[in-house]
Amino acid sequence: MEFTAGQIAELLLGKVDGDASVIVNCFSKIEEGKPGSLSFLANPKYTNYIYETEASVVLVNYDFVAQKKISCTLIRVQDSYKAIAQLLAVYNSMIDKPVGIEKNSFIHKKAKIGKNVYIGAFAYIGKDAEVGDNVQIYPGAYIGNNVKIGENTVIHPGVKIYYNTIIGKDCTIHSGSVIGADGFGFAPNGNDAFVKIAQIGNVIIEDNVELGALVTIDRATMGSTIIRKGVKLDNHNHVAHNVEIGSNTVIAAQSGIAGTAKIGDNCMFGGQVGIGPHVKIANGTKMSAQSGIANNIKTENSILMGAPAFDLREYHRAYVHFKNLDKIVKRIDELERKLKDK
Amino acid sequence: MEFTAGQIAELLLGKVDGDASVIVNCFSKIEEGKPGSLSFLANPKYTNYIYETEASVVLVNYDFVAQKKISCTLIRVQDSYKAIAQLLAVYNSMIDKPVGIEKNSFIHKKAKIGKNVYIGAFAYIGKDAEVGDNVQIYPGAYIGNNVKIGENTVIHPGVKIYYNTIIGKDCTIHSGSVIGADGFGFAPNGNDAFVKIAQIGNVIIEDNVELGALVTIDRATMGSTIIRKGVKLDNHNHVAHNVEIGSNTVIAAQSGIAGTAKIGDNCMFGGQVGIGPHVKIANGTKMSAQSGIANNIKTENSILMGAPAFDLREYHRAYVHFKNLDKIVKRIDELERKLKDK
Amino acid sequence: MEFTAGQIAELLLGKVDGDASVIVNCFSKIEEGKPGSLSFLANPKYTNYIYETEASVVLVNYDFVAQKKISCTLIRVQDSYKAIAQLLAVYNSMIDKPVGIEKNSFIHKKAKIGKNVYIGAFAYIGKDAEVGDNVQIYPGAYIGNNVKIGENTVIHPGVKIYYNTIIGKDCTIHSGSVIGADGFGFAPNGNDAFVKIAQIGNVIIEDNVELGALVTIDRATMGSTIIRKGVKLDNHNHVAHNVEIGSNTVIAAQSGIAGTAKIGDNCMFGGQVGIGPHVKIANGTKMSAQSGIANNIKTENSILMGAPAFDLREYHRAYVHFKNLDKIVKRIDELERKLKDK
Repeated sequence: MEFTAGQIAELLLGKVDGDASVIVNCFSKIEEGKPGSLSFLANPKYTNYIYETEASVVLVNYDFVAQKKISCTLIRVQDSYKAIAQLLAVYNSMIDKPVGIEKNSFIHKKAKIGKNVYIGAFAYIGKDAEVGDNVQIYPGAYIGNNVKIGENTVIHPGVKIYYNTIIGKDCTIHSGSVIGADGFGFAPNGNDAFVKIAQIGNVIIEDNVELGALVTIDRATMGSTIIRKGVKLDNHNHVAHNVEIGSNTVIAAQSGIAGTAKIGDNCMFGGQVGIGPHVKIANGTKMSAQSGIANNIKTENSILMGAPAFDLREYHRAYVHFKNLDKIVKRIDELERKLKDK
Repeated sequence: MEFTAGQIAELLLGKVDGDASVIVNCFSKIEEGKPGSLSFLANPKYTNYIYETEASVVLVNYDFVAQKKISCTLIRVQDSYKAIAQLLAVYNSMIDKPVGIEKNSFIHKKAKIGKNVYIGAFAYIGKDAEVGDNVQIYPGAYIGNNVKIGENTVIHPGVKIYYNTIIGKDCTIHSGSVIGADGFGFAPNGNDAFVKIAQIGNVIIEDNVELGALVTIDRATMGSTIIRKGVKLDNHNHVAHNVEIGSNTVIAAQSGIAGTAKIGDNCMFGGQVGIGPHVKIANGTKMSAQSGIANNIKTENSILMGAPAFDLREYHRAYVHFKNLDKIVKRIDELERKLKDK
Repeated sequence: MEFTAGQIAELLLGKVDGDASVIVNCFSKIEEGKPGSLSFLANPKYTNYIYETEASVVLVNYDFVAQKKISCTLIRVQDSYKAIAQLLAVYNSMIDKPVGIEKNSFIHKKAKIGKNVYIGAFAYIGKDAEVGDNVQIYPGAYIGNNVKIGENTVIHPGVKIYYNTIIGKDCTIHSGSVIGADGFGFAPNGNDAFVKIAQIGNVIIEDNVELGALVTIDRATMGSTIIRKGVKLDNHNHVAHNVEIGSNTVIAAQSGIAGTAKIGDNCMFGGQVGIGPHVKIANGTKMSAQSGIANNIKTENSILMGAPAFDLREYHRAYVHFKNLDKIVKRIDELERKLKDK
């Protein structure tokens, strides 16, 4: 696929600054730009690269003012980051999407399959499962009995979805994720051993949710574990039984939410965060990577760090002192010595 | 499935307090109770909900005394938590369990398959593998050569079990878990690179063990990695080569046990805990979430927190001061100033 | 397989000390030695076990001097650890490796398959994929369109490799790992929700890399996520989009590297380490388990601990004071009291 700078500017409603006939056929990051590639400048930290990049075309904001000579063609747009995202999406949509039902898939005779779906080889669709229109189910995925999958959702290779799970429209679930496994519920039997509490609830995932690779979302003991619309969970996230995650909350990789915790809307958690059982987290809470919390966060839009987590700036201030504790203790030694001398 | 309050009371050897003819057909949590559902009150924190719940029937302990009017039917029992667990198990046992061998499974001609088993489509049973009676092996699971699986064990979709692994009776392994992959053993080759140490041992899992989704248990370098009877590991746990985990130990999600560590019996670890290589942990040790330890714990029933972990209460006490370090340092500044003035 | 002490000594160019005709048929650790097994003594900490071990043969270094009577046969070698590794490798190479293409695999007619390969049942090889000579692809693995796999590489059961990934020679990827899933890239849509940034790059894995079970390596947004030659990643590692990991770097289980981070050559990270986005880590950096860092590490061969991480010895020194903070604050209380009294 080849395009001229002029064609791209037209698509983006942008303005060419330089040779509009130059041709590009791939994307590059500005610091790794190669001839024939299209790049972009969004983060001011990277501005210096624009004077050296070998990329043929670079998207910049309208207000960009060059401080030195620039050899590439510029396309000026309202928001260069949005523009590159738009182009990537166009490029991505040009990749052939698979359609049809491959041989060697297993589809229960009581499953309902929508129009225009892809069901890959070795995929398994259980009894009473419902697969919406335009859904893609890649090879080796397992869709248990009575699972519902909304239209346009993409289930990548090897995803495992246990019975009774409900998944909305326009979702993406990456490889190896496991939805609806039993919650971790055991009761002591009074004899040092544990008896399993049957986990008879399910998982509900609303529309427009994206789950990375190897995410687990456990079924509820009773009722439902709920992932609200627009949630994005990165790889290796763990969501325990009866958790609810509010709309548009975004969680980076390897974080874990313990049983029955309720996470608000529009939260953002870094990687390797831990949320304790039964904890309620207010809307808009931000948690720094590797933080943990076992108590409710009631104030919206808090920014937290530490284990247990508290205000991010206070954490950083305390941590500076922590690093200096040896010197601080020496100051106390000195004070004690001086006071004794007096 | 519908039952009257009277029928349920009979099953639980409980006593109806209210309308014994009221019908329920599902479970609910007391704070989410709906008409037609059965709920329970076990945790006193939730007592207030019993006066407002719309659940039709609520299990309570014999000694529960209402402080206000209650509109639902009560069933009084010895231990409401055990009673609800009993009912959930009954309900769960009523779900049809799959039996038989689905088409498109691969069973090596030298594998031994017990009676009354389920082997799902795309499951793979290797040479000399032995599958006990009543075992369920769900679609896409891989059972390597010479693996032994004891009776009544359930292997969920997509579990991968490497050769020579031995699994006991009445175990459950959830989707995507990997048992018997190579331990992480490499020796420096003196030239900045590493040479693999062949991992020729195996994994032994005793009876009544439950592993969550996406758990890894690596094979031993030599000998066996051993998971003793009654152990429960939550999702995303990592158990390295030559580890031994003692009976009835319970570990929450995303924890990791490094090579050759020995974990005692009846331990309880929170999520995201890390145990260092060669560490020995005494029986009954409790580790708070996100804690880590690189030294042996010799005293039984210790309760630990931090990284490195120490006594939980001392950790909390130290952490309060940590949060106040800025104020503490200001007090030292002030002391120094005053002492100088004198 | 049975060997005499004499045969083994010959293979290792070692010297028998004791009965050269004694027969062994398995390996054991010295502390678990059983008659008929071969063991080794490399770590001086384990020296006491040699006087009690029931192993029939023990490898020791040439310079080992017994302090008490030894009942087993010794084989003296230059480096007993290397010698045992050599024997384990020999033993491992004697296990039958599968070859051939099992029924019920899916191989696209436009895929290129090398000589002497193994492709297991339910494995999927996509369009334009290239599988080199002697490659083993175990059951249930998914090789997407246009993936290249170099010769001698082993892909264990259920590994999922997305389109356009390039994997070198002599690599091992353990079960359930996911290579090439979308990077976690979303842009706010100005309305509290997020829009996906299409991830159109790929993953490149160089030669002689080993990935444990359930590792994720995300494809780049643009360009490539790169794992350099000789890298070893333990189970549950997460490598985000556009990361580069330098040659021969070794990372223990459950660590996570955020987007666009660049890890140097010859680094060693403990388990559960977190590296922030865009961070650059110098060659030879060592990070203690559970450490985290959000800033660049510019000094080579640093040894770091903490979150955020700093010099390991300083961390330990500060942590001793942290544990004592209650006493330290009492000393300040006392100082204040005394100063007031004066």
